Amino acid sequence: MPNRCIKEGDNPDLTKERKTCTFDTDELTANLYGSRNNMERRREITKKISADPDFADPIPHDFLSREKCIEATAKKTKAVVQRGSEFCDVTNYYEMLHLINEAIGIGGYPLALHYGMFLPALEGQAEKELTDDIIPRAKNLEVIGAYAQTEMGHGTNLRELETTATYDKATQEFIINTPTRSAMKWWPGNLGKMSNYAVVTCQLFIDGRKIGPHNFLVQLRCEKTHEPLPGIIVGDIGPKMAFDTNDNGFLALDNIRVPRKNMLMKHAKVSPDGVYTPPMHAKLNYGTMVYVRAHMLYAHGQFLATAAIVATRYSAVRRQGRIEHGVPEVQILDYQTQQHRIFPQIARAYAIIFTYMDIKDQYDAMIKGIAEGQTDLLPDLHAITSGLKSVVTHMAGLGIEQCRMACGGHGYSDASGLPKLYGVQIGGCTYEGENMVMLQQTARYLMKAVASALQGKPLSHSVAYFGKKSSGKSRIGKEGGDIAREHEAMLEALEHAACRLSVEASQMWEKRGRGGETKERAWNGVTVEMNRAARVHTRVFMARSFHRRVTSSPPSIRPVLTDLLSLYLHYECVDMAHHLLEDGFCSGEQIRYLKSRLYEDLTTLRPNAVSLVDSFDQSDRELNSVLGRRDGNVYEALYQWARKSELNYTDVLPAVQKYVMPMMEENRSKL
Amino acid sequence: MPNRCIKEGDNPDLTKERKTCTFDTDELTANLYGSRNNMERRREITKKISADPDFADPIPHDFLSREKCIEATAKKTKAVVQRGSEFCDVTNYYEMLHLINEAIGIGGYPLALHYGMFLPALEGQAEKELTDDIIPRAKNLEVIGAYAQTEMGHGTNLRELETTATYDKATQEFIINTPTRSAMKWWPGNLGKMSNYAVVTCQLFIDGRKIGPHNFLVQLRCEKTHEPLPGIIVGDIGPKMAFDTNDNGFLALDNIRVPRKNMLMKHAKVSPDGVYTPPMHAKLNYGTMVYVRAHMLYAHGQFLATAAIVATRYSAVRRQGRIEHGVPEVQILDYQTQQHRIFPQIARAYAIIFTYMDIKDQYDAMIKGIAEGQTDLLPDLHAITSGLKSVVTHMAGLGIEQCRMACGGHGYSDASGLPKLYGVQIGGCTYEGENMVMLQQTARYLMKAVASALQGKPLSHSVAYFGKKSSGKSRIGKEGGDIAREHEAMLEALEHAACRLSVEASQMWEKRGRGGETKERAWNGVTVEMNRAARVHTRVFMARSFHRRVTSSPPSIRPVLTDLLSLYLHYECVDMAHHLLEDGFCSGEQIRYLKSRLYEDLTTLRPNAVSLVDSFDQSDRELNSVLGRRDGNVYEALYQWARKSELNYTDVLPAVQKYVMPMMEENRSKL
Repeated sequence: MPNRCIKEGDNPDLTKERKTCTFDTDELTANLYGSRNNMERRREITKKISADPDFADPIPHDFLSREKCIEATAKKTKAVVQRGSEFCDVTNYYEMLHLINEAIGIGGYPLALHYGMFLPALEGQAEKELTDDIIPRAKNLEVIGAYAQTEMGHGTNLRELETTATYDKATQEFIINTPTRSAMKWWPGNLGKMSNYAVVTCQLFIDGRKIGPHNFLVQLRCEKTHEPLPGIIVGDIGPKMAFDTNDNGFLALDNIRVPRKNMLMKHAKVSPDGVYTPPMHAKLNYGTMVYVRAHMLYAHGQFLATAAIVATRYSAVRRQGRIEHGVPEVQILDYQTQQHRIFPQIARAYAIIFTYMDIKDQYDAMIKGIAEGQTDLLPDLHAITSGLKSVVTHMAGLGIEQCRMACGGHGYSDASGLPKLYGVQIGGCTYEGENMVMLQQTARYLMKAVASALQGKPLSHSVAYFGKKSSGKSRIGKEGGDIAREHEAMLEALEHAACRLSVEASQMWEKRGRGGETKERAWNGVTVEMNRAARVHTRVFMARSFHRRVTSSPPSIRPVLTDLLSLYLHYECVDMAHHLLEDGFCSGEQIRYLKSRLYEDLTTLRPNAVSLVDSFDQSDRELNSVLGRRDGNVYEALYQWARKSELNYTDVLPAVQKYVMPMMEENRSKL
Repeated sequence: MPNRCIKEGDNPDLTKERKTCTFDTDELTANLYGSRNNMERRREITKKISADPDFADPIPHDFLSREKCIEATAKKTKAVVQRGSEFCDVTNYYEMLHLINEAIGIGGYPLALHYGMFLPALEGQAEKELTDDIIPRAKNLEVIGAYAQTEMGHGTNLRELETTATYDKATQEFIINTPTRSAMKWWPGNLGKMSNYAVVTCQLFIDGRKIGPHNFLVQLRCEKTHEPLPGIIVGDIGPKMAFDTNDNGFLALDNIRVPRKNMLMKHAKVSPDGVYTPPMHAKLNYGTMVYVRAHMLYAHGQFLATAAIVATRYSAVRRQGRIEHGVPEVQILDYQTQQHRIFPQIARAYAIIFTYMDIKDQYDAMIKGIAEGQTDLLPDLHAITSGLKSVVTHMAGLGIEQCRMACGGHGYSDASGLPKLYGVQIGGCTYEGENMVMLQQTARYLMKAVASALQGKPLSHSVAYFGKKSSGKSRIGKEGGDIAREHEAMLEALEHAACRLSVEASQMWEKRGRGGETKERAWNGVTVEMNRAARVHTRVFMARSFHRRVTSSPPSIRPVLTDLLSLYLHYECVDMAHHLLEDGFCSGEQIRYLKSRLYEDLTTLRPNAVSLVDSFDQSDRELNSVLGRRDGNVYEALYQWARKSELNYTDVLPAVQKYVMPMMEENRSKL
């Protein structure tokens, strides 16, 4: 029973759960974070931050106004900037990520976009004349920048952005202007109040000719007073579903002049006399998109993990109702419906994180390839990360909500941490490429793959299975209990379905085309089917990644991971039964068999459930949840949390004094 | 083109949509609200409230702290109480509901539980001695009450509530006490700050014997000072996912003595010398639960309608991207994926409201029956409303989120109104009976129905179809385009699936019992299957209700409702294809046929989409959404809304002045 989380004073039900663990939680944690050293480093950072007064919250953010939250966050950000290297290797992406999660949280902070978009854009797209000046000052945080691309009227379709940059040959300046209300920049992170500079995406105009969207560096606020410069309207776009501490902003520019060198001209150029040179490679930024989407997988896997930790631990602590008469109330984790709600979320969190690892390996290989002049891995990786971005963000959102609702009423309280977690997480369905659009990118790639497969051409990694010969009938339930072969049979069935859906979608598309529609219009008539095919394909990819990671995992943790993989595959196949049944590849009997196996899996996993979530190794600070705390001492913590509600500062609320008491008083005296 | 919403100055794209309307929106609205008179009354209330300064919001609640929101709400509540009859017939449930929605909103108000639970509990459960004193004062609002049942440790399982009421024969008092932390009352609405009285559910103890949960009237606060009385700890439980303006509360009682008459003794009694008389009918309160759940259907239908209105109108206004090259950017409502996201939500909102109407008719019949001594309608209605409560709240939640995401980035902003709407709505999955528990109540009823059907016994209304003979093979796609027969074929297929799933779940349950498990333990091994059967059964009921309302609707609106019903049935069948395919009742070919019909429905409904949501007749005040406003002038309104953000009160945010500017300054001077 090597669950490493047991401590004295813990809730006894939680300790009981941890004692039935059949593996070493530290080994699984080390596997999840890449190495034992990484695991240790994470824990050190957690320990230091937790003990540091600069990062203490006398009042939880739950009880602060948005302004006060931003102030607290700005204070912590300053401390991270000034003292970061005391806590971690600031050049290590994962250590910094963990440091920021622990020190600041997940709701945004003043420099998120400065480091995440502003600096990378300048470094990647600007020429020496510009970078020499601005980058050292940006790195030294003498200025803070945002990346202002999205407008009120246009997010997805960059080619239609309305902000203009008109080149004035006479003065060798660009005139940057917001011609309409809908042309206002809207949503860019940290644009509203924090940044004094921004990279602004504008339609370039030269001699009255529209060239297309390009980036320009624009100063927004005075470096001394931080007041907006003349002709600039900038502010906060107001409260959102979450990200309270991000000042997503708006920006209107009234014919602001910037020198020619302020255009980011590493790729496309405008000469002093107004001659435009287009970029060499139009799609160079695909690599960045792949990078961002890959890292979104990691974040969303961790978000779902958070919810699974909270729901699993709380369900072990909470006792309510009886399964049989005359026995004590049971832990709600004993209910089959509760297990069926939560355990698949645990499995999916692992699946997402393992898929991320796979993608990261491929990304590294691609970067290596590009350095050697090979760009052929990019389209495949771009297509699958587009699908994964969509599938994973949606899957994680549904899963978090299931976990939240599994906590009953207390899950609805901000004390659980889950409402805010959902708010932050679900944004991922929309930003960095709207999910429906993402799936269509994957689908377009699948259509090419279908054509290649039909022509016997070679197939790239993610679609290689299109070239497999289908056995015509599924082997599910016919492998005599051989787990490895059972898993393979399920993977094969899913691949068969994904391939079939792609081929059918392709045929529908063609058919509409033959009916006289243009290719584009015909596409719009089949996009629901296209997206369906892309989703199933993506889920096949995830199942394969999970399978690969499990079969190559250290022998000590392989048994529990194999159980988890079984649950995952059974759940996925039942969830996609429609597609397995539709062409008769699987029989109804086989689907029933999968369901019965799924219910067995729930029972099998029960003794390891708490230990599997413990292995995510998220600290109480990261969890930020009264219900999910490691020690399980939930009820007292809930009361202590609620006492801090701003409504409890006085016994008699001012609003009651002002309106409710006089009303009662009046009514009494009326008699 | 009798869309009645067209006005000058509207967004031209929205007007264009309204001009393609093929029916009279007022007729559909009148049908939805029961009569033309009801529709007119609603509009009058809206008009009066919108023009009344007592209900104006100088600053939208989005920008206020929770305390300020509560204050604004208390002020409006006072005005509704004092001036309600100026606006509506205060004895009419629907008019009052509409008045409160218009005047106050959906986030809770100080008297919600006073009127909703406290007064009805006293009226229904207390005896004359108690009611004579308290009810006139409660009705006159000299006191305000809450209903304190749920505890920190127990919500669903009332039998295990820990708060005690011990009878003291010597003084003829009950001693009411909170023995543990988890025994604290937790969650009751308006308990925290507003109420000075509460009906408190306690375990009754007499002579050391535990009798079970009973209700007691307890004074919590001084009527003069509103300070908590000695021995009483009461306060707000802190912020939640939504319902900011409801002071859900906690309560601990330290051996508080109340006179014997404070027990609500209409049903169970305790005599002065401590003799307990149990209630005659143990399940009398089932009627109330049915009532509450029925009205939840109405509310959740309206919630989903709100989201559908916002998403549909905004999708007509928003232009982005091109379907074909060389043409202008299209309204995003032209994308098939967008239609597939939104139109089924429109159909489901109608389905839920029509189902509510059906249930209401049945409820009225039941009440009439009970008055005549017939209680036989109650179990059937209880079972189906349990299922509906679960299915509808979950369906509405998923639908609202789809609508929100269909609005892209702006849907994520509080300006859209949708994040808050989701927060309020999704609570319905948890309160008034947790959804998984609800489904099990329906499933238990289904198991009885299966047994009755097997024995040839008569079957009640909601399960009557269990007695139908199945044709063995579905007629879907084989009715030669006859719409009425097509609809019947789909309904039959869904009924076949629901019945089959119930029978199979029953067999699994029996099988586990034969394997040696107790009936209760065996039940826990099949609850996922049971819930599945209950869900499909409930969705069959909804489809039948929708079908019945459409086929009996006035001829002028029947064509558009028939189109909507087609979409609904096709969508439901595709969504439940797994169950239709599993036993071969439907073929894969038939499912493909349903999908192709579904895509045709999207095109058919397109010209009426805006008019269908207009017909819900929700005012801009009710919608509370910059994106959903009737006139479609979205972008300017978005900017005006954002300018009110509390972060924009000053150009330079205090937090920036305090931490960010000094940091930049320091870094500059370091060089």
